[in-house]
Amino acid sequence: MSNSYTDKLLRVNLSEGTVKTEKINRDWQKEFIGGRGLATKYLISETDSKTDPLGKENKLIFVTGPLTGTSAPTGARYMVVTKSPLTGTIACSNSGGYFGSELKFAGYDMIIFEGASDKPVYLSIYNDDVVIKDAAAIWGKGVWETEDILKSVEGDSDSRVAAIGPAGENKVLFSCIVNEKHRAAGRSGVGAVMGSKKLKAIVVRGTKGIGVSNPERFFEDINKSKEILREAPVTGQALPAYGTAVLVNVMNEYGGLPSYNFRSSQFANAEKISGETIADTRLVANKACFACTIACGRVTKLPDNASEKYIVSTSSRNWKDAGGGPEYENIWAMAPLCGIDDIDALIKANWLCNDLGMDPISYGATLACAMELYENGAIDEKTAGMNLNFGNAEALVKMVYDTGHRSGFGDYLAEGSYRLSKRFSHPEFFMGVKKQEFPAYDPRAVQGIGLAYATNNRGADHLRAYTIASEIMGIPEKTDPAETEGKAALTKLFQDATGVVDSSGLCIFCTFAIGLPEIVPMINSAAGSDYSVDDALKIGERIWNMEHLYNLSAGILGAEDTLPKRILEGKIAEGPTKGMVNKLDKMLPEYYQLRGWDDNAVPSKEKIEELGLG
Amino acid sequence: MSNSYTDKLLRVNLSEGTVKTEKINRDWQKEFIGGRGLATKYLISETDSKTDPLGKENKLIFVTGPLTGTSAPTGARYMVVTKSPLTGTIACSNSGGYFGSELKFAGYDMIIFEGASDKPVYLSIYNDDVVIKDAAAIWGKGVWETEDILKSVEGDSDSRVAAIGPAGENKVLFSCIVNEKHRAAGRSGVGAVMGSKKLKAIVVRGTKGIGVSNPERFFEDINKSKEILREAPVTGQALPAYGTAVLVNVMNEYGGLPSYNFRSSQFANAEKISGETIADTRLVANKACFACTIACGRVTKLPDNASEKYIVSTSSRNWKDAGGGPEYENIWAMAPLCGIDDIDALIKANWLCNDLGMDPISYGATLACAMELYENGAIDEKTAGMNLNFGNAEALVKMVYDTGHRSGFGDYLAEGSYRLSKRFSHPEFFMGVKKQEFPAYDPRAVQGIGLAYATNNRGADHLRAYTIASEIMGIPEKTDPAETEGKAALTKLFQDATGVVDSSGLCIFCTFAIGLPEIVPMINSAAGSDYSVDDALKIGERIWNMEHLYNLSAGILGAEDTLPKRILEGKIAEGPTKGMVNKLDKMLPEYYQLRGWDDNAVPSKEKIEELGLG
Repeated sequence: MSNSYTDKLLRVNLSEGTVKTEKINRDWQKEFIGGRGLATKYLISETDSKTDPLGKENKLIFVTGPLTGTSAPTGARYMVVTKSPLTGTIACSNSGGYFGSELKFAGYDMIIFEGASDKPVYLSIYNDDVVIKDAAAIWGKGVWETEDILKSVEGDSDSRVAAIGPAGENKVLFSCIVNEKHRAAGRSGVGAVMGSKKLKAIVVRGTKGIGVSNPERFFEDINKSKEILREAPVTGQALPAYGTAVLVNVMNEYGGLPSYNFRSSQFANAEKISGETIADTRLVANKACFACTIACGRVTKLPDNASEKYIVSTSSRNWKDAGGGPEYENIWAMAPLCGIDDIDALIKANWLCNDLGMDPISYGATLACAMELYENGAIDEKTAGMNLNFGNAEALVKMVYDTGHRSGFGDYLAEGSYRLSKRFSHPEFFMGVKKQEFPAYDPRAVQGIGLAYATNNRGADHLRAYTIASEIMGIPEKTDPAETEGKAALTKLFQDATGVVDSSGLCIFCTFAIGLPEIVPMINSAAGSDYSVDDALKIGERIWNMEHLYNLSAGILGAEDTLPKRILEGKIAEGPTKGMVNKLDKMLPEYYQLRGWDDNAVPSKEKIEELGLG
Repeated sequence: MSNSYTDKLLRVNLSEGTVKTEKINRDWQKEFIGGRGLATKYLISETDSKTDPLGKENKLIFVTGPLTGTSAPTGARYMVVTKSPLTGTIACSNSGGYFGSELKFAGYDMIIFEGASDKPVYLSIYNDDVVIKDAAAIWGKGVWETEDILKSVEGDSDSRVAAIGPAGENKVLFSCIVNEKHRAAGRSGVGAVMGSKKLKAIVVRGTKGIGVSNPERFFEDINKSKEILREAPVTGQALPAYGTAVLVNVMNEYGGLPSYNFRSSQFANAEKISGETIADTRLVANKACFACTIACGRVTKLPDNASEKYIVSTSSRNWKDAGGGPEYENIWAMAPLCGIDDIDALIKANWLCNDLGMDPISYGATLACAMELYENGAIDEKTAGMNLNFGNAEALVKMVYDTGHRSGFGDYLAEGSYRLSKRFSHPEFFMGVKKQEFPAYDPRAVQGIGLAYATNNRGADHLRAYTIASEIMGIPEKTDPAETEGKAALTKLFQDATGVVDSSGLCIFCTFAIGLPEIVPMINSAAGSDYSVDDALKIGERIWNMEHLYNLSAGILGAEDTLPKRILEGKIAEGPTKGMVNKLDKMLPEYYQLRGWDDNAVPSKEKIEELGLG
């Protein structure tokens, strides 16, 4: 029966230089849908949770979902699943663009990379022709030049490239994997794992079609979803108009935009780097991922007079060309959090992050931590090589190079803010959870997101339970951000539902408009499955618990489900949210109870049984 | 005030090639006495429990106790504390001989090795002269030749040498550190950590004295202990006469000597490899460690006609010379457990283990596992390179070489039986706990030792709670080995008391005669402390919980406190213990309760508070 799975995976052993195709395990596909859930099941079955993330025993899995590459709206996602070198937890980083769909078109749901190559290589995929090739000529080059060279070498301008930059090669702990130059599987250092395997890039070209199980019903289902997406205010208006950067002013006005490494929760000059300002002064065009009707992606351009400032030698890029971003999270981490309001320095640093292959959230947050260490005298100018006062836009751009290349002080930044703050004897300046840096929402001002951060299976991160949708935007319904009641249930529901979305191949942004009642039918009519919404939620719960059990057995215990002291005890000093702290202790016990976990976050035998995870 | 601590440690950074002396942290010394407890506190404070055991971030600590190097009877021990590459748990391996005392005479309680050298080195210590030296000329050589060369190079025949052999260099996961050629810090692969740091050996010569705080009282205390040791049957007669091998017949007659990879619990030909037979036919002399009045060590010699059989080229050793051992555990693992009764093959394999620097328990047990895999067809002759049937004495000797050098099939054996059994798809043939192989007492036949194995902080092992003393020998009082009642309390008490002994620098064998009421006064009069017996037990409990918390945070959770199915469900088929299984489920919950841990082995907040481990 035709459906939207290819039912095949590529197994690439980089130690032995071999490529095999295998049938996907059908039982697991049914239990986990695809994407994040399925790849995590493979990783857990094939590796030891205690393995060194940068050792050859770790595996790196690229995976799509049954809706990736179909015409389901936002069905463009691929995910990278591995053990994170930043956090030691399970990692699943998610990216859009066109790479994931192309992989499906070539005939593969998944690629499992195992072992490690002795010398730099890349993987070339042209439908059934899959070859490991020498990458000596591109090792050391930026992501953009790598893509240009590979497209030219492979002779197909329609090829899609996912690559690491120097940051991944140098195993920067928050390096990412970038496709189409400006889309990234961004968090938790998946790029460093790719670098540790000496795998520079994957080039893929596919010319096969993707079937769906019930075409007639499928088109009905997707048309219904598209209509809802078009009419919903966030997906139909705000995101198309301003991209994710629309949130800068929203969060700042509410008093939930952390600045100066979380010493404050508003930023006086937010207007200078807001989505509205970018749209008015730097925006060239919107850019959509494959099959997406939202098109939140930005294309921006620097003004002529800004293009040389702070920029030192890098790849062959012409800085007068337009480029992608910046996204809300990146703006926040590299501007307000560092006390910086120079929009062009921000855009340059963001592009450089993409070119070097580095997560701008963790980079910006680590720099902010360094700035606080600097202002407290724990780091001096000699150690840092320059002044690192908050607000220093030159440092923002300069340190991107040094971090990506691990040169000078950048070698310390490359380890992330958890290790940096410990190295300089102020662990209290680390603002994150499980060694990963917070994203752009102050958990003192927004209670639920604090619980979501604290319990997140991949460390501090907003993309596993975006409670901001409810607490700030009122989707699907408004809850009070200052209130703790009900946030445990909200967080659990969002975590479980997100597991379904991440396994389907859809983008989480579709959930600003549609929910599982729309998503599950699309999965069914494409994949030939017959999940109910309840079935799907159970799958989401299974994924969450599976990831959580992996973390426990990797030694990431319940004690790490917490927030920094500054968040739990340091009241917000000024502004509309003045006096607030995160009341995690009011939410966490209830959350554990709802999950069927004990006080130490250990799932009960009954829960493990119920989810088939025994 | 003079006391038996030197109060100094050596910090050797092998990455940077630097040596520093530091004061010992006095607060920690008081909280943990010294030895195992103190070094573990340092390791936990300075390293991440999730670090790669063979990576440069792991540290390797050599440590003595306040009674090491004094004239307290059995006060000869040093310990090696690190994270184990075999188990992923905390490791503390303990050795006697003269090395530990010599280190104290040179003026150091402890050495912390950090980082890793690029090229082979050894550490030379002559009192205050401490130098990292090139080891290119001895890298690759066996332990014995290494010791001979280093003594000649350093020009002092009184120097003491602790070294790794090829097994440690090749990171065999159960490689050990050997001093005076035949004494070893044996279990959990501490030799591989030393190898990963490219540290071949430590040569130490010390000419300083060791004071005691209250000489008059100290000599009274030790004389009293010596008298008890002399008069107790085990330490005054059995061990001096037959060494630890006295247990072969004892355990076999009881029906608790596992054979054929635990398929049986007796061995028909035990008499051929018993302590009595060795004493009658192979023993040359007894050998005592520094200050020991027991002298359980054996010196044996092969008969002339046996000396060439199975032996292939190795170091320059003359096989007609006498050598150390074999000890009970080693006899058991390499003979009954493999179905072998060739005493000379056993002695050769044992010497080769010492020369290659490899734990004979884990080696023998891994070979036994391979033999069961072989007899079940999971490994064929082509894979193994030879016939691996149970009873093959040639395989026993041949595979020692191959394992130590990781050549051929030995490369699989070098990973231990947990990984071996998984590799060949029969994980049920692994006989151990937490990836470490069982020692020589059948936990089906002796209930308490099963609980001790299951809950041991360094995986299956008898030296953290030797309940055999009570269950078989009746020390301090006889308990029924078939009974589960009371074994939780017995195990906890032995675990806590052993922590004190291991931290003092005494040998656990002294406890066959004396107990904390004799030991604590010796510590006090030597170290100038004023611990009560209750204080000491609290310290033991603190050590146990500290190690346990380290393991939890390394991902070694309560679920691993278990025994193989063969032990829990596979009844003993024949002999006096026929029909028995280990009833762990009757003991474990009570044990957790006594420890103040929950059902998942997580210590309560109150217990953590009480022990000052928060």
